[in-house]
Amino acid sequence: MISITLPDGSVRQYDKGITSMQIAQSISEGLARNVLAAEVNGQVWDASRPIEEDSNVKLLTWNDDAGKATFWHSSAHLMAEALEALYPGTKFGIGPAIETGFYYDVDFGDQEFSSDHFKQIEDKMLELAKAKEEFIRKPVSKADAIEYFTEKGDEYKLDLIKDLPDGAITFYSQGSFTDLCRGPHIPNTGFVKAIKLMNTAGAYWRGDETRKQLTRIYGVTFPKSSELTEYLRVIEEAKKRDHRKLGKELELFAFSEKVGMGLPLWLPKGTALRERLVNFLQRAQVKAGYEQVITPHIGHKNLYVTSGHYEKYGKDSFQPIKTPQEGEEFFLKPMNCPHHCEIYKTKPRSYKDLPVRYAEFGTVYRYEQSGELHGLTRVRGFTQDDAHLFCRPDQVKEEFMKVIDLVLYVFSALGFEDYTAQISLRDPENKSKYIGSDENWALAESAIMEAAEEKGLKTVVELGEAAFYGPKLDFMVKDALGRKWQLGTIQVDYNLPERFELEYTGSDNLKHRPVMIHRAPFGSLERFVAVLIEHCAGNFPLWLSPDQFIILPISEKFEDYAKNLSDELKNSDIRGLIDFRDEKIGRKIRDAEVKKIPYMLIVGEKEAAEGTISVRKHGTGDLGSLTIEEFKQQLIKETTV
Amino acid sequence: MISITLPDGSVRQYDKGITSMQIAQSISEGLARNVLAAEVNGQVWDASRPIEEDSNVKLLTWNDDAGKATFWHSSAHLMAEALEALYPGTKFGIGPAIETGFYYDVDFGDQEFSSDHFKQIEDKMLELAKAKEEFIRKPVSKADAIEYFTEKGDEYKLDLIKDLPDGAITFYSQGSFTDLCRGPHIPNTGFVKAIKLMNTAGAYWRGDETRKQLTRIYGVTFPKSSELTEYLRVIEEAKKRDHRKLGKELELFAFSEKVGMGLPLWLPKGTALRERLVNFLQRAQVKAGYEQVITPHIGHKNLYVTSGHYEKYGKDSFQPIKTPQEGEEFFLKPMNCPHHCEIYKTKPRSYKDLPVRYAEFGTVYRYEQSGELHGLTRVRGFTQDDAHLFCRPDQVKEEFMKVIDLVLYVFSALGFEDYTAQISLRDPENKSKYIGSDENWALAESAIMEAAEEKGLKTVVELGEAAFYGPKLDFMVKDALGRKWQLGTIQVDYNLPERFELEYTGSDNLKHRPVMIHRAPFGSLERFVAVLIEHCAGNFPLWLSPDQFIILPISEKFEDYAKNLSDELKNSDIRGLIDFRDEKIGRKIRDAEVKKIPYMLIVGEKEAAEGTISVRKHGTGDLGSLTIEEFKQQLIKETTV
Repeated sequence: MISITLPDGSVRQYDKGITSMQIAQSISEGLARNVLAAEVNGQVWDASRPIEEDSNVKLLTWNDDAGKATFWHSSAHLMAEALEALYPGTKFGIGPAIETGFYYDVDFGDQEFSSDHFKQIEDKMLELAKAKEEFIRKPVSKADAIEYFTEKGDEYKLDLIKDLPDGAITFYSQGSFTDLCRGPHIPNTGFVKAIKLMNTAGAYWRGDETRKQLTRIYGVTFPKSSELTEYLRVIEEAKKRDHRKLGKELELFAFSEKVGMGLPLWLPKGTALRERLVNFLQRAQVKAGYEQVITPHIGHKNLYVTSGHYEKYGKDSFQPIKTPQEGEEFFLKPMNCPHHCEIYKTKPRSYKDLPVRYAEFGTVYRYEQSGELHGLTRVRGFTQDDAHLFCRPDQVKEEFMKVIDLVLYVFSALGFEDYTAQISLRDPENKSKYIGSDENWALAESAIMEAAEEKGLKTVVELGEAAFYGPKLDFMVKDALGRKWQLGTIQVDYNLPERFELEYTGSDNLKHRPVMIHRAPFGSLERFVAVLIEHCAGNFPLWLSPDQFIILPISEKFEDYAKNLSDELKNSDIRGLIDFRDEKIGRKIRDAEVKKIPYMLIVGEKEAAEGTISVRKHGTGDLGSLTIEEFKQQLIKETTV
Repeated sequence: MISITLPDGSVRQYDKGITSMQIAQSISEGLARNVLAAEVNGQVWDASRPIEEDSNVKLLTWNDDAGKATFWHSSAHLMAEALEALYPGTKFGIGPAIETGFYYDVDFGDQEFSSDHFKQIEDKMLELAKAKEEFIRKPVSKADAIEYFTEKGDEYKLDLIKDLPDGAITFYSQGSFTDLCRGPHIPNTGFVKAIKLMNTAGAYWRGDETRKQLTRIYGVTFPKSSELTEYLRVIEEAKKRDHRKLGKELELFAFSEKVGMGLPLWLPKGTALRERLVNFLQRAQVKAGYEQVITPHIGHKNLYVTSGHYEKYGKDSFQPIKTPQEGEEFFLKPMNCPHHCEIYKTKPRSYKDLPVRYAEFGTVYRYEQSGELHGLTRVRGFTQDDAHLFCRPDQVKEEFMKVIDLVLYVFSALGFEDYTAQISLRDPENKSKYIGSDENWALAESAIMEAAEEKGLKTVVELGEAAFYGPKLDFMVKDALGRKWQLGTIQVDYNLPERFELEYTGSDNLKHRPVMIHRAPFGSLERFVAVLIEHCAGNFPLWLSPDQFIILPISEKFEDYAKNLSDELKNSDIRGLIDFRDEKIGRKIRDAEVKKIPYMLIVGEKEAAEGTISVRKHGTGDLGSLTIEEFKQQLIKETTV
């Protein structure tokens, strides 16, 4: 008998050689139907693999990331089986699971192939899935493995085997298909109920441009067809919401090759949106005791030698800017913290002065390869909603809690309701990777953990994921399409205070080092605006909307009335414009809907005579007739954040 | 008889050989007493020089720049005469008038000299001035000139004579002193009534480091001693108001060698001040139909090749920033206009869309030699309150007038009441230096002249001072100490629209080039804040003041009352702080006065009991007891711009 410890801590006795699937069955048949694999002593195993000793076992289902990965890896084998059946002689490279779905790199030889064949392959895969073919694991010797694939004529698998040690090679077979594979796999192909091949791409064997280009086929599978439907819906919706598309349509930002790739130009409407975000956070920060500062966008080489950025990033960054005469070297600033450290140093500090909180909407520049650039989410210049808090060690927890409050306030004002906090601590097995004393680490880590707990955050703790200079907390936020974004980061730093020799005089009259906290609720304005556009599909909360109203005069006759109306609304800080075009009212309404302007104000004979407006709300429709005063009051009420 | 035309256009007949002084005497004895020199047919002459033909004559007095220059140049001769008397054998280099005063470079040989001797020299000068020695002009041949200075043993004058053509050499003598000099000079030394030697410096002969270093003595003189008193007062006052000194004392900004020279760090209070200026102008600009945009601080080399900056400034600017991999070259942006041109190009424009007005508080970087840097007035990075208006040629005048309105609004809100507009037009004799058609220049120049006239501006027109790309108008503003600053510039530009191929579709359905107007009411925020600090001696208008109040609790007992009071004021957007120090109230008041905080709110037993505050105004004193509400209302009234 062996003892099996389950994740809830319960221990059960089983015969030696029991499988995870059998354990699941001993608990409930319903559970067993969902088990895809199992984590045995921290390693993912086939659910059918016998367990020979006392073990910790976690049964993996579709709800576990490792369960999904196993499911998709097995789906890659399933696709390979279908391809072999449909295109005899096809050779196979590698076929891993990816973040969503899987791919397989294949060599069709002389056989023609295109995405037109997807349907046929999907059908074949479904047919093989219905057959519930079991995935069977078989350890093989290196010699046998080589013999098998030599006979099959698959040079790619032979190339892979070459690098494997004898004794560590396994084959997996399902139905008529056998693959070189470390596993694990799901019990049988029958778990796969819905299949969609997505696209193809060229992929050099082993990523080496001098070797053969294979055809990479991407696919995704699900245990329920409703999940595939939902997945495809989200993809369609994501395309509609793509911030690059909406950014252009709504005239928020643009790029120019002449200015340079990855360097956004904020157009008037985007600037208005961005400035509103800035003002919103600035107000909240003033209330929270932050002080705003402004620093230059470049810094002398010495600054980055002191901060350590020069040594760590110098070569891979934008190269230095030299002065024409003195030969001094400056760098575009990649971060605001070194500048803020220098501000801290402009005067002596006492323990009573702390915490000091310097905030800056600081534009930083970081080199990215041109191929990596993507809309506003991957740029070469971006503005951080940055702040650095300089505090005493005993203030870290309280400051951390205040920052959490601020971040949550920001999320709630912008409609992000679903988030978890990922806490990154140091690897307790490998302390030498980190700087700072054990005492300070213990203090900071427990401060973060306690702060998160007291704030009631859903947390995930990652050991070994801390920065070398301190632990941190990142907010992972789900958008309206269920996609996760890392927003809002809070980091403790022992390194820069040391490197910049920051000090304060303690109550003991001795010099002490302050602790630094870096934090950015938005992260970067560029990336945040991109996420926000996609989250709300361009229908911004009214208080953020670049234009809040558009006045649509029925004809030229009512332009004066429209102008007066516009002036009156603008005097109450309500933003908008007038559609002066000589177009039919229906066309004006349709165009305003495309521009996602929250309120359309239609003015004609009746309205001008009565001093009213006919109000239409974007996405809702006709709200009837209101006086200007009524409309103003409604807007002021709606826009109070 | 010859005809003399005076500046008012009147023509008088005089005998041939009449002098300007005699002309003055013929008008009035009072005038004659003030005549220092005369402009005869555009050249400045001695008032004693005979006029031999019909001429335009302008009598020059202390009120004319050329009159002052003549006065100070004569004062240099007067100083030389005194030096020769006191330090026999002294040799003389050059002794010109400068912007304010004069200097003379002298070689004392072995004689000791220091500024301790100033008094003695001033006294000698006054003595010689009282003697009313006439300045006598005498043309000499080159041979005679060489003989004279060879005998005197003055190698510097001989060095100067060497380069002069025979027939163009004149000597000027007053009393016992004779100098090689082109003149002109004032009638006699008696005009000089007040003398102050300022300082000495080393100066290489002819600015050549390989040649002998002479002693440069700076001085200033006046026709009235009250003017000297006022001049010295202004200098003392300017030292007190030096923005570098006040910037440090008021904690507005700082510099750090590590960050780099000429790159200001805006501290919290300075940032608050600057942001308020920005918001103020931003609000005014929104009302004036501007749209805010944001562009990156770097641009690809191609952008500056297109704009022409690369060719014109490339070598003398901050050198290019290379990407580590692609080898692309970027530059720190020296101006925002190329970026704004690219924004203009993001969509097609119709004549109905114009004018388009893009505003940006854009931080630009320009290389300055480290020795040229000076506080916030000469920096390497600064933020322009920049805007570019793209309009049709027929809109230039109206747009220009609107910009003038905006600039004047800014000046008046900030207490600058004394200004003139300098209009720079093209040199009509040398049109090839400029780009753009005659028609466009005529249109733009007359638009500017008419706009300035219709706005009733005091103007000075400078021919040939236009930029090569268009005419401009600069505001020259006098500060509280009477010093002139160039603030507020408006420029017309035909060049960039051409280089960027900007277009709009006219009512004729054809493509046309828009005209660009560059404008910046402040110029740069850095320089403007420096001028403002010195103009108001750090006593900012209340609406701009970084802290508007400071609460001074009599003792620790009243800290809670102070905190509640502070919260209430802050909720009404009134800014300030609390002096929590354990100091006597007298000390707290003195320190608050040094910090120039407009309102000191003293709270003790009585105030806490009654819910009042005891209000003290900076520079004014006790205002008595007010309720919080009364104080709030007073501040809100006072801060309405």
